Amino acid sequence: MSYQVTEDDLEAIALGGAYLGTGGGGDPYIGKLMARQAIAKHGPVTVVSPDEVADDTLCVPVFMMGAPTVMLEKLPSGDEILKALAELERFLGRKAGALICVEAGGLNSTIPFMVAATTGLPLIDGDGMGRAFPELQMVSFTMHDIAASPMVLADEKGNSSLMSTISSLWTERLARVVAVQMGGAALVAAYPMSGADMKRSILRGTLTLIRDIGDTILSERKASRHPGPALRKMNDGEHLFTGRVVDVDRVTTGGFARGKLTLRGIDDFVGQEFFVHFQNEFLLAETSDGEPVCMTPDLICALDADLGLPVTTEQMRYGMTVEFSALPADPQWHTPAGLELAGPKYFGYEHEFKSFR
Amino acid sequence: MSYQVTEDDLEAIALGGAYLGTGGGGDPYIGKLMARQAIAKHGPVTVVSPDEVADDTLCVPVFMMGAPTVMLEKLPSGDEILKALAELERFLGRKAGALICVEAGGLNSTIPFMVAATTGLPLIDGDGMGRAFPELQMVSFTMHDIAASPMVLADEKGNSSLMSTISSLWTERLARVVAVQMGGAALVAAYPMSGADMKRSILRGTLTLIRDIGDTILSERKASRHPGPALRKMNDGEHLFTGRVVDVDRVTTGGFARGKLTLRGIDDFVGQEFFVHFQNEFLLAETSDGEPVCMTPDLICALDADLGLPVTTEQMRYGMTVEFSALPADPQWHTPAGLELAGPKYFGYEHEFKSFR
Repeated sequence: MSYQVTEDDLEAIALGGAYLGTGGGGDPYIGKLMARQAIAKHGPVTVVSPDEVADDTLCVPVFMMGAPTVMLEKLPSGDEILKALAELERFLGRKAGALICVEAGGLNSTIPFMVAATTGLPLIDGDGMGRAFPELQMVSFTMHDIAASPMVLADEKGNSSLMSTISSLWTERLARVVAVQMGGAALVAAYPMSGADMKRSILRGTLTLIRDIGDTILSERKASRHPGPALRKMNDGEHLFTGRVVDVDRVTTGGFARGKLTLRGIDDFVGQEFFVHFQNEFLLAETSDGEPVCMTPDLICALDADLGLPVTTEQMRYGMTVEFSALPADPQWHTPAGLELAGPKYFGYEHEFKSFR
Repeated sequence: MSYQVTEDDLEAIALGGAYLGTGGGGDPYIGKLMARQAIAKHGPVTVVSPDEVADDTLCVPVFMMGAPTVMLEKLPSGDEILKALAELERFLGRKAGALICVEAGGLNSTIPFMVAATTGLPLIDGDGMGRAFPELQMVSFTMHDIAASPMVLADEKGNSSLMSTISSLWTERLARVVAVQMGGAALVAAYPMSGADMKRSILRGTLTLIRDIGDTILSERKASRHPGPALRKMNDGEHLFTGRVVDVDRVTTGGFARGKLTLRGIDDFVGQEFFVHFQNEFLLAETSDGEPVCMTPDLICALDADLGLPVTTEQMRYGMTVEFSALPADPQWHTPAGLELAGPKYFGYEHEFKSFR
């Protein structure tokens, strides 16, 4: 069940990650370049299915944490994340045997390929979210009592910080302020876990799904079709609306890019107006009279209505036309534990969770 | 040259530390209780002179970091600082052989006695400031290129964070925000150094001086004399003014207690008004027309004009009468390197440093 990922696959992985990243998870361009360079130098990456990993293998998610608005301008060098992993290994007194993607996202689905290529470690086909979420504790690992800490953050200047905390909420709290001081974003190795723990907690198949989504985007675009319909069919999704961005209200604060988009409907949606609220990721889409059309933890995925390419929150700008679709979250996110972690109430929205269907 | 410190010495040490702490360094009462309890349980603490420590002994300063206003209400349990030390030892892969006081201060001169009593380690007669300063990098160790990191912060909840940084200014920056998240104050083990490095950088004799100052306060009070004159004579100090506090402008922000006192002169100073600016510690005393009378790094020490007891910044309140004295800082603080670290300009005051004499 294992397969190799080469330079040629990275375009699709970056696009698929950005689509499933629901606006967050970082810029696909930077991650793709970093992974491409590493694979060119060190050779392809082996993606393994969770069951191919031994129960006693140390598995470590590696990722970037911070505001995507910052990540656009503050490029990682690649050394920080290797340093974060090495410091975590030093603290644990053992070496990682496999790497994990913590979330889908343009950067966070590709940067683990850079680390895997450089270290020669396999990357496990799965992730902790099946999408992207803004906070550290919002992972399936939390629902299975696997702790975020010990966790290491590293920056491009050479600083690092190792957290040992009583809960993953505390890890988030301490790590977030350090990431802000490190310049708004940091590279991270966290949630170290055994292969056995990984198998019972990981959301399976995410990397393959991401690649397939990316392949679909590429092939539909090649056939001069907008990829929206094919992606919805593939992912059991629904078209929410298509609109023109008429306002972007965005601040980078507390380590997050927070804000609200206002879109004026086009095509079948002329005469309607929509709001999309985000905190790194799109979290709540509603009509202008406050009726929710899709809410977290379900996925709100954006494609440029003209180009058919995924659009992240930080790329949103006045005048852009965007097609928004809803995809169902992994069923774990619909459980009481999942909704407590990443449902609308956690983010301060008043709505009870309701499926977009 | 080594001597034993017993429960009976702690009253003097707490008072002397608070006096030399120039308003900061924490509340003397809490630290005294913690040290007393530990000495009662584990026996007296051995204070050694720097030259009695072997060159290859690992020496570690242990202290509390944060806003003294918070420390008054958020009492340390004692376990946090032991945990911080243990985690630093684990990271370094070796055990501390001696402890250091980082600064003079009611709490920070006494809490190392608690750690020393509990661990059985000797405490070195010296410190890194010869007074208290608000920021982590403001120590003689910095002037001798000894780094603050690796450094561990721990809180009473069980969280800890290990920093590895490119400079002690970066340690301060990252550690400060973590301390704020930990509730405004954290217990710390930092500046691990060899005995050889300790000998070339420590300000010698501070613990003995603190005890002697405390003994003087106690004996003068016992003789119904205000300790101010005797302390000035002992420390080559000058009487700045005595006044009644008519305004306390204080905010706890960014992890510090910052503000300004306004005092109306009494006794020989009737008709005059004074301001004392502070950031945890008293940093600048000036007349009401902005003429400085004493500025950092020289010491601005406060005694209650009636009781003769040291007054910390967080104890200052309307109506209190306070006698302020200036003491000269250790000569290292008057060098260009010392003034760059802790001179008036660093704190944003416009004055060039000028001695109070």
